[in-house]
Amino acid sequence: MNSNYYAILMAGGVGSRFWPVSTQDFPKQFHDMLGTGDTLIQKTFQRLSRLIPKENIFILTNARYNDLVLEQLPEVEQRQVLLEPAMRNTAPCILYASLKIQKENPNAVMIVAPSDHWIEDETTFAKNVQTAFDYCSNNKALMTLGIKPTFPNTGYGYIEYDKNTSETVKSVDQFREKPDYETAKAFISAGNFLWNAGIFMWSAATVIEAFKRNQPELYELFESGISAYNTPDENEFILENYPKAENISVDYAIMEKSSNVHVIGAEFDWNDLGTWGSLYDKLDKDKHSNAILNAKSLVENAERNIVRAPKGKLVVIDGLNDYIIVDHDNTLLIYPKSKEQDIKQIQQRLKNKYGKN
Amino acid sequence: MNSNYYAILMAGGVGSRFWPVSTQDFPKQFHDMLGTGDTLIQKTFQRLSRLIPKENIFILTNARYNDLVLEQLPEVEQRQVLLEPAMRNTAPCILYASLKIQKENPNAVMIVAPSDHWIEDETTFAKNVQTAFDYCSNNKALMTLGIKPTFPNTGYGYIEYDKNTSETVKSVDQFREKPDYETAKAFISAGNFLWNAGIFMWSAATVIEAFKRNQPELYELFESGISAYNTPDENEFILENYPKAENISVDYAIMEKSSNVHVIGAEFDWNDLGTWGSLYDKLDKDKHSNAILNAKSLVENAERNIVRAPKGKLVVIDGLNDYIIVDHDNTLLIYPKSKEQDIKQIQQRLKNKYGKN
Repeated sequence: MNSNYYAILMAGGVGSRFWPVSTQDFPKQFHDMLGTGDTLIQKTFQRLSRLIPKENIFILTNARYNDLVLEQLPEVEQRQVLLEPAMRNTAPCILYASLKIQKENPNAVMIVAPSDHWIEDETTFAKNVQTAFDYCSNNKALMTLGIKPTFPNTGYGYIEYDKNTSETVKSVDQFREKPDYETAKAFISAGNFLWNAGIFMWSAATVIEAFKRNQPELYELFESGISAYNTPDENEFILENYPKAENISVDYAIMEKSSNVHVIGAEFDWNDLGTWGSLYDKLDKDKHSNAILNAKSLVENAERNIVRAPKGKLVVIDGLNDYIIVDHDNTLLIYPKSKEQDIKQIQQRLKNKYGKN
Repeated sequence: MNSNYYAILMAGGVGSRFWPVSTQDFPKQFHDMLGTGDTLIQKTFQRLSRLIPKENIFILTNARYNDLVLEQLPEVEQRQVLLEPAMRNTAPCILYASLKIQKENPNAVMIVAPSDHWIEDETTFAKNVQTAFDYCSNNKALMTLGIKPTFPNTGYGYIEYDKNTSETVKSVDQFREKPDYETAKAFISAGNFLWNAGIFMWSAATVIEAFKRNQPELYELFESGISAYNTPDENEFILENYPKAENISVDYAIMEKSSNVHVIGAEFDWNDLGTWGSLYDKLDKDKHSNAILNAKSLVENAERNIVRAPKGKLVVIDGLNDYIIVDHDNTLLIYPKSKEQDIKQIQQRLKNKYGKN
């Protein structure tokens, strides 16, 4: 395994559309959402460790999830868990991690990836990442993995690439924000648009150079800590300086402003597991297209439901179609799939009704 | 309080249409179905004890429920709990209890009543029972309390009384089995039909005489134990002889065969709490007619549901109408109210699917 290969796993999100399973105290990436026996972060870690030495995989998360990370990834040491002392978008933490990695290994090439996505075909994933790593080792490139769109989804950003190329590694023309439906349809018929899945690859040197050129203030803030990184002084520096960082995404901070941006079209199946409905798509179904997680069940005159209950609980359902039924901890949710986007507002409405839970 | 007054509470049923709350191990009468803080048998006991000395209230049940009875009715002593050693219909246990009571007090008048019905107006109930007791103390009468029918229910038996009387105590022409819908409609327009709620009143002497005349075999079986009743020998006698008793209802054994049968039309509201739907009718509702028991809830775009969950559990529902939603022990039931009669078959279907639970 190539000791220059590194990974940054993004594991600070909450996944509030997966309430009541995913909560601020115990977010989605730490749950076995698929019922396979592994949590999403465990599956992601295993996938990356086919290509990347385990000690080179860093986890970016929030202090409150430190114990969960160490518990679920026993091979990971505390030095690999980077805790954000303040809630920020992706740019500050990626720059910070990249500077640490570069100090440890100036020849590092790395992947930045979410910890909570579904990718089943690990072999093809590793092959695509290998192609990107090879390219980034030899070129000053900011690389993304783009997902071939299957329908005009208005929930993702899109990557427009040079249509006059048949190479695997394509030059990116521009990043496009989440479009409206008509624009998304136009993107798809144009043929040279991919979904932005938030998966990036580059050498440490190239990404740091991109920050230096495009975000000089942010660069100076984190560069001033170089002597402290990977030493006992690091923690104090980060606690003091991280909160000063601008709240900005890596897409906006460097990707949309750089000319050396490239994309590889992913050849593997991908799902961001953003909602109960997208999880439903990836689960095994019974002959009436019901997906039942964990529970024992008797489901009759009912189709296309997703049911999740504690292991061994018995669930009896009659005459319900296209519902999300989740029994978790001390909460029962019975909600139409068509309203899955509203689930993230339920907690606020509960607070309005009952006060702080 | 009149020390000649006695009661026999029937508490051996299972209430399988209230699954998963009511089970063979823990039947309906021992649950707080109404969310009032009292179980149904506790409410029934309290209602009867307004008129009847507590030590004169006997509970007829199955050996497996002995501990539940003593736990829920701490005023009751073991001598008041009569355990059926074999599953039989109502006639054998009523005859057995009546012989015991007569031996203890030859002047006893008694009420026989189910332990799991809903009667809110205790004052009027006591008034109607008092009228019956007065009549039965002075006449050799087999008395019932009949319920004025509110719709052509095909689930109850009917009592046809003499239409040429305006007395409170009416002579009964005949007992009618559960009718079909057209017959039930005819009963209601006739005007002299009441629902048979299984509530009977009589003197010990009169009911025993009726058994002797109409069921000589059954009478001889239990009469042969007279010397043992209310002594340490009783248990052995009952264990040996009870299983020999014919499996026959008190309606069929004596009521339908006797000429001295009377009825008083109940002046109180009554509900047999036979199904989740009949329980729903008796519960408080929110402004969208949802009845929520125990749980904290956020129920939106949803009407006429009955929801029961453990105390403090949070239930979030959207877009569901006329459903029974019950979360109890390790079971979740989501079932249309229109199919409430099918609930009693669920356990069998589960056994077919999973084997013995």
